[in-house]
Formats: sequence, C-alpha cells, structure tokens
Amino acid sequence: MSSIAVYPGTFDPPTCGHLDIITRSAKVFDTLYVAVLNNSDKTPIFSVDERKNMLSRITNNLNNVVITSFNGLLADYAKQINANVIVKGLRAVSDYEYEYQMALINNKINPAADTFFLTTTAENSFLSSSVVKDIARYKGDLTNMVPSEIQSIVYSKLTE
Amino acid sequence: MSSIAVYPGTFDPPTCGHLDIITRSAKVFDTLYVAVLNNSDKTPIFSVDERKNMLSRITNNLNNVVITSFNGLLADYAKQINANVIVKGLRAVSDYEYEYQMALINNKINPAADTFFLTTTAENSFLSSSVVKDIARYKGDLTNMVPSEIQSIVYSKLTE
Amino acid sequence: MSSIAVYPGTFDPPTCGHLDIITRSAKVFDTLYVAVLNNSDKTPIFSVDERKNMLSRITNNLNNVVITSFNGLLADYAKQINANVIVKGLRAVSDYEYEYQMALINNKINPAADTFFLTTTAENSFLSSSVVKDIARYKGDLTNMVPSEIQSIVYSKLTE
Amino acid sequence: MSSIAVYPGTFDPPTCGHLDIITRSAKVFDTLYVAVLNNSDKTPIFSVDERKNMLSRITNNLNNVVITSFNGLLADYAKQINANVIVKGLRAVSDYEYEYQMALINNKINPAADTFFLTTTAENSFLSSSVVKDIARYKGDLTNMVPSEIQSIVYSKLTE
Amino acid sequence: MSSIAVYPGTFDPPTCGHLDIITRSAKVFDTLYVAVLNNSDKTPIFSVDERKNMLSRITNNLNNVVITSFNGLLADYAKQINANVIVKGLRAVSDYEYEYQMALINNKINPAADTFFLTTTAENSFLSSSVVKDIARYKGDLTNMVPSEIQSIVYSKLTE
Amino acid sequence: MSSIAVYPGTFDPPTCGHLDIITRSAKVFDTLYVAVLNNSDKTPIFSVDERKNMLSRITNNLNNVVITSFNGLLADYAKQINANVIVKGLRAVSDYEYEYQMALINNKINPAADTFFLTTTAENSFLSSSVVKDIARYKGDLTNMVPSEIQSIVYSKLTE
Repeated sequence: MSSIAVYPGTFDPPTCGHLDIITRSAKVFDTLYVAVLNNSDKTPIFSVDERKNMLSRITNNLNNVVITSFNGLLADYAKQINANVIVKGLRAVSDYEYEYQMALINNKINPAADTFFLTTTAENSFLSSSVVKDIARYKGDLTNMVPSEIQSIVYSKLTE
Repeated sequence: MSSIAVYPGTFDPPTCGHLDIITRSAKVFDTLYVAVLNNSDKTPIFSVDERKNMLSRITNNLNNVVITSFNGLLADYAKQINANVIVKGLRAVSDYEYEYQMALINNKINPAADTFFLTTTAENSFLSSSVVKDIARYKGDLTNMVPSEIQSIVYSKLTE
Repeated sequence: MSSIAVYPGTFDPPTCGHLDIITRSAKVFDTLYVAVLNNSDKTPIFSVDERKNMLSRITNNLNNVVITSFNGLLADYAKQINANVIVKGLRAVSDYEYEYQMALINNKINPAADTFFLTTTAENSFLSSSVVKDIARYKGDLTNMVPSEIQSIVYSKLTE
Repeated sequence: MSSIAVYPGTFDPPTCGHLDIITRSAKVFDTLYVAVLNNSDKTPIFSVDERKNMLSRITNNLNNVVITSFNGLLADYAKQINANVIVKGLRAVSDYEYEYQMALINNKINPAADTFFLTTTAENSFLSSSVVKDIARYKGDLTNMVPSEIQSIVYSKLTE
Repeated sequence: MSSIAVYPGTFDPPTCGHLDIITRSAKVFDTLYVAVLNNSDKTPIFSVDERKNMLSRITNNLNNVVITSFNGLLADYAKQINANVIVKGLRAVSDYEYEYQMALINNKINPAADTFFLTTTAENSFLSSSVVKDIARYKGDLTNMVPSEIQSIVYSKLTE
Repeated sequence: MSSIAVYPGTFDPPTCGHLDIITRSAKVFDTLYVAVLNNSDKTPIFSVDERKNMLSRITNNLNNVVITSFNGLLADYAKQINANVIVKGLRAVSDYEYEYQMALINNKINPAADTFFLTTTAENSFLSSSVVKDIARYKGDLTNMVPSEIQSIVYSKLTE
C-alpha cells in the first residue's frame, strides 16, 4: 500500500487553512505533492514562483511534502505523477457542491486517482486567500490567518 | 507513514454505495476497519452479527479490511484501535453539513484521528439502506443496489 | 402527445400550497391524479377517506383531476395508472435534495414516469401540513393557509 | 426606542453556544426573555424547572435577562410579553432553512415581533444539546461545551 | 389541454445533459421551443447560429421540437410564443436556489407561463458547458458528455 | 443599553427588499446607519451620491436613520461610528453561507460589533438590485420592486 497524494490550489497566497490541510494530509499519505495551479485564465497577485517559494517556507519541516506547479487538467497532472489520491479542503456547503462535481469529472478522466476531502477546522472556516488579500490591503491583522513565516511577504505585495 | 482507518456505519444492510467506499479506501489506507455501530437507540432490522457477516462476505477479497463492531463514541473507539483516519462517505449536501459537525466534534474528543471524506459515485448517489429496505419489502429489483452476494439475505429478511 | 400525471402526498391535511400545485399542474397535463399515500408507517391525523374527501371538495372545479389513494412504491403505482409524469412541489433547498434522490430512485424503478418539479409561490413557501396542524391546535388563523372549503373540518379535527 | 427580545429554546441542557447567544443579545436589546419551551410532544431529559434553574445560574450576572417558560405558539407568547424581537441562533445551513420558514410563519401570526438571527461563533458551530448529552452519557470532557457552573448537574443527570 | 413549453439556455455548446432534458420534455409537452439566449453581456465561444445549428443536429428526430433564439427577458419571450411552460434542468442545490428565484421573478412578469423543473440523471449531474470546453481545450475524451453528432464541431472550435 | 447599528450595502439601486430591512431595523435599534459601500472594484451604475440620494428619499420618514458611505473594511467603519450591531438581510441559503463567513471575519477584526441577520419577507425573497436593473432595462414593471419615490430615477438611468 503506497499512497501518493496531490493537493492542488491557487495559493494566492497560502493561508493557515491551506497549511492545516497540508499538515494533516502529510501525516496520512506517503508523499504529498502541493501543486500550484498555473492557469492563464486567473490573474493571481503572486507569481507561480512566489507562491511556490511561500509554500516551501511554510512546509520545510514536512519531509514528505513536494512543492510543484502544473497547468492543464488536474486529472492529467495526477496521472503524470502517479498520484492515487487528490486532496481537497472543504469549508462551506457551496464549496462541497462544486468540489463534488469536480471529483466526479476528475474520476471520469482519471479513475486511478480518487478525491479525498478534509474539512477545515472551525477556526479556519472563514479563511480564504481573498479574505487575506482584503485584510492585507488595509493593513489589518493577519495573525492566525497567514503563517508567520510569510506574513511580511504578503503585506509587502499587497501594499506596494 | 502508516495509516489505520476506520469506516463506521449502521450498515442495515450494506449497499453497493458502502462497498464502493470500502473498496476505494482499502486502496489508499494500510488497514481499514469497517465498524458496525451497535447503538441501542436505533432499531436496526439486522442484528450486529448479521451485518458483520454480510460485510465479511462482500469484502473477503480485500486483505487489509477488518470487520468489527463498537458502541459508545466513535472518537473513543478510534483511539482504542489506534486509527489516525476516520472515513466517511458523502452523498448530498445535507449529509455534508451533519458530517462536518461530527468531524469537528470527533476531532475535539480525539485529535489523533482525522476525518477524510469520499463522495459516492454518481450511480450510487441516491442509494441508502432505507431505500434498499423499502424496495426489498415490495420485492423490487435490487441489482446494482446491494452486492449480489447478499441480495438473497436482504430479500429473506425484509419479506419474512 | 398525452400526459398523465400523478401528484402524490400525505395531504394531512391539504394546504393552499398543495392546491396551488394541483391547479398549476392541471393547466398543463391532460389528466392529473392526486394520490393520497396510505402508508402504515406514518400516523396521520386524518383518515385516507377524510383526506380524499377534503381533496375532492377543493378540486371539484378542476375537470381533469382525479382523487385517488395508493400504498406501496410510488413508481409502481405510476406504472399501474400509466402515468408518464410525477409532479412534486418544492419549497426549501432541503426538500430539493430529498426529492432529487427520490426522482433518481423512481426513475430507476419505473423509467416510463419522469418527475417534474414545481416550486411553491413565495406566499406559500413556509406552509406545510405540520404548520397548519400546529396553528389549528391553538385556534390560530388559517386564512390563506388552508382552502376555505375545508377550514372548519381542519379546526374540528384538531381541537376535538 | 425600546427593545424587548425573546430567545426561545428547549435548552435540554443549555450549552456554551446558547450562553453566547444570550450574552451577545443582552448587550443589544433592553430586555431579553430566555424562554424555555414546555412542549408536551418532546421528551426532554431535564424538567422545565431544572432547565430554568440552569439558565438562571449561568446568566445571573446579566441584569436585563429574564428566565421564563411558555407553551403554545411562540408568536402568541411574544405578543403576551410585548416582545418586538425574537432572537434565534444559527449554526448550519439546514438550521437556516428551517428558521427562515419559522420566521415567516411567526411574522404572519404576530407581525409586531420580528426575528433577528445571530450566528454561532466558529468554536461553537458544532455544539448542540444532543451532542452534549451524548458526550456526558459516556463521561467525555464537557469543557467549553457546557458552562462550568452547570457541568456537574449535566453529568449527574446523564449518568444516573 | 395544450402545452407549449420553452427550454431556454446558452448552449455554448449543448451537452448530453441538455439533450436529456430536451428528450424528456418533448415526451410530455405538445411543443417544445429550445431557445438560445442571445445575451450581449455574456461572451460565448459559439455564435448564436452555430449553437442553433448544433441543437438542430442533435434534435432532428424529435418532431415537436423547435430551435429558436431570443434576447431580452425570458418571461417576455414566453408570452410572445404563447408558452405556458418554462422548462429548466436542475443539477446541484445551488442551481436550485438561483432557479427558484428566477421562477418567482418570471412568474411575476408573466403569470401565464409556469416553470417546471427536471433534474439531470445521475450520470449527467457533473456535466456543464464549461466542463465540456475545459476538456475539449486539452483534447480530453468527450464521449457521453457531448452528443456524438457535434463532437467534432466542439473539438474544432476549442482547439482552433 | 444603547444600540447603534450599521446596514451596509451597494444599493445599486435600493430595492423594496432593502427598504423593508431598513424599516424593520429602525424599529429596534436606537440609531441605524445605512452605509453605501464605495468600493473601487465594483462598477455600479449609480454614483455614490445618487445612491445616497435615493436612500434619503425613501427613508425620510424614519428619524433614527442616517445615510452615509464608506470604503475599506466594514469592520473598521463600524468601529469608527461606534456601531455595536451590523445588520444584514438574508434571502437564500447561499447568501447565508457567505454572510456567515463575513460575520466571523468581521467579528475577528472588530469584536465590538456583532452581526444580526434579518430575513426578507416572502414577497421580496427574489428581489435584488440586479433583477431590478434587468427589468428596468427592458422597461418592465417595477411596482413592489423599487419604492415608488425612486422608480422614475431608476428607469431614467437604465434606459438612457
């Protein structure tokens, strides 16, 4: 039994909610790829390299975590790295609906990778990258919202 | 990295939806306990032994699956068997809400076991033990609803 | 093109919400069976005959409506009366989830009958037979909740 | 401008979630009636007097809170005490749907009292009287679930 | 009793899910207008003529189906073609909420046309025009997602 | 006990649903700030001044209502005006989810202001500024959708 998991996301920027999902998944799966989606449709604030750099900083104590990026379909990327698990974090009910549909589609394209969902902790249930950006823009307090290692990077970018 | 998972349920009776969750989980976790909830509040049609027997029949080709039963709190039972994963299958949005709350509670009682959710396949999205019992009672067709190994057991019980 | 529809329910008692669904469906389908579910599991306040009688009173100006009752599976009853349409009224989101699952099951058992949903009007969105019974029990005002033809029957039964 | 609010509930037993709603409402409304629903249909574990006693203990530092009980329709009780506000606490989406319908009904019966909703804090989002009873029954830890003043009362009752 | 139904949509492109709703509606209503929304706000990939052409190809065995297009308010268009039924397909709960509100609005503007909902089959529950476009763009497999008659048209457009 | 409430919104334009929330809140809270969000990200049809002017016209009989505008974070603005209550109107379940998350975030940034929710009446449940704009654009009937005092302003703007 060997489990290779991929946790995809935009991570623009990574939040404490993302880190929580990464930490919990890394305890259970043998290898965890944290994969930055490089999607030309979206216009992220941080470049792919900046996002990978931030993810590396906050996960450098987790030995079985690999930071990567991909473009195209997630199901195809999962096949390429031999992942048999796709990890998704769930907050609200509306997340769930969307993610349920994505799980069905991904399974149709690549039946070898199965989607496992983790729910955020209560404390992180309202956290999202958009919320973080809004608060950073007005120099609000990001404690417990963004890992301390990358808070100054987030403030610098959003207030430049 | 060693993963011990527990998949709890009433399984009154087990359906193809349950078997799907079991099969997919058994591919990813090292050991999977399928644990029949023995709860005096509910009044199941099948005894705990009958349910364990049906689960054994339908999983006997899965080497890392162990059929058990428990009473009391799931979080306590997970601790007792050293499980670090609780597996739950999700169908509808209303399932998700309830299970999200249960995951938060279980995590509070036993932080060592984390809940991972799998969604049912589209084909099984409407399946439940109650639906199966309603259909069996009127001698309807249970193909693709209940694993073939236990269909006659289900019909016998519900029409006796 | 000939459409035979069945609108099943407990109707314990019928409300203005039920009558609204009946009226709107009767405008579109050639024949509409309004079918009282005679289910031994539930314990309705009104007998099947009382419920059929109330439904007859409030629909006697609708020529293509037939009041009936059934037990067993709805999908089987639909087959028996050659219905190609099952009508369901929807209020809240939680109704929708349950009814979606029932529509999938009914379609599996009887593919010849397809479920069509109507949503309640805004004014009736909070109405249900339970609400009506609660209010009648305390002699509250049932105007616009229960058709006027049967209000005295409802009050008599609930305050006897 | 004078606001008289009523916060109805079963409170079987009161939880930290209930106390949070009471505390926050008491800061905003002039008078807050916390009203135990005395409903013969439900079968609570604690008597009405026990529940009123527990509520008194946990709110005795809140001067504008009055502990009462009522039976019948909430909208009628609100009229009797001249309340112009009904307070409801919301957790999940399914709560919301039900409470929305109840707010519409209550407004129809008594337009003078309007329903105001508060959402639980993230920490209390999974808390309910049922969860508390389940945990107490198995002598689990009730810290942060039930106010400390009444924890021993809850344990005694559930393990007697 | 004569039923004229309109099934509006963007159909950019039509999917197997759309065709399923069309086929089932055409069995029940006397005439079914499939009406392409020509809305300047959206920026579809396919022109109105291309979408009408694809709809014609996949419905040419359905005699009571008419392919059209419209702009402006749906409720006004329904009046113009004397439709007494608006058909909508429902997938997820979030669809339902939005469509419920639209049904109330349409009914306010044009009370003569009533909205009837059909739910997608389980197999199509994750299908949407956006999903189809994403997969086509990466030359993924569109079998069972887009009717075979128009698959090459879809691939050509999305990979040009 | 003194309650200062703020009801924030885009109000582009204000609808009968907004006015209903304002009227009901003004009955319960000592002072009610109706605060137009001046957010550079959105591109409203009406200028901030036009929106404030419309709000003044429809609330000029409500003595404890103050029309203002703000930019930046709502939680910061609430602090600035010493508000201890944030008022939000809720329609659908999806509103609720989003607003629940916003309430948790606002409470984290400014614990002194607590969010109270009111649900729209059944009659207004489908009303929104977007619906109003769509209907006005096609010269549809805005009765009971937009307060009569500002209907001509809305028509003028949308059809200019």
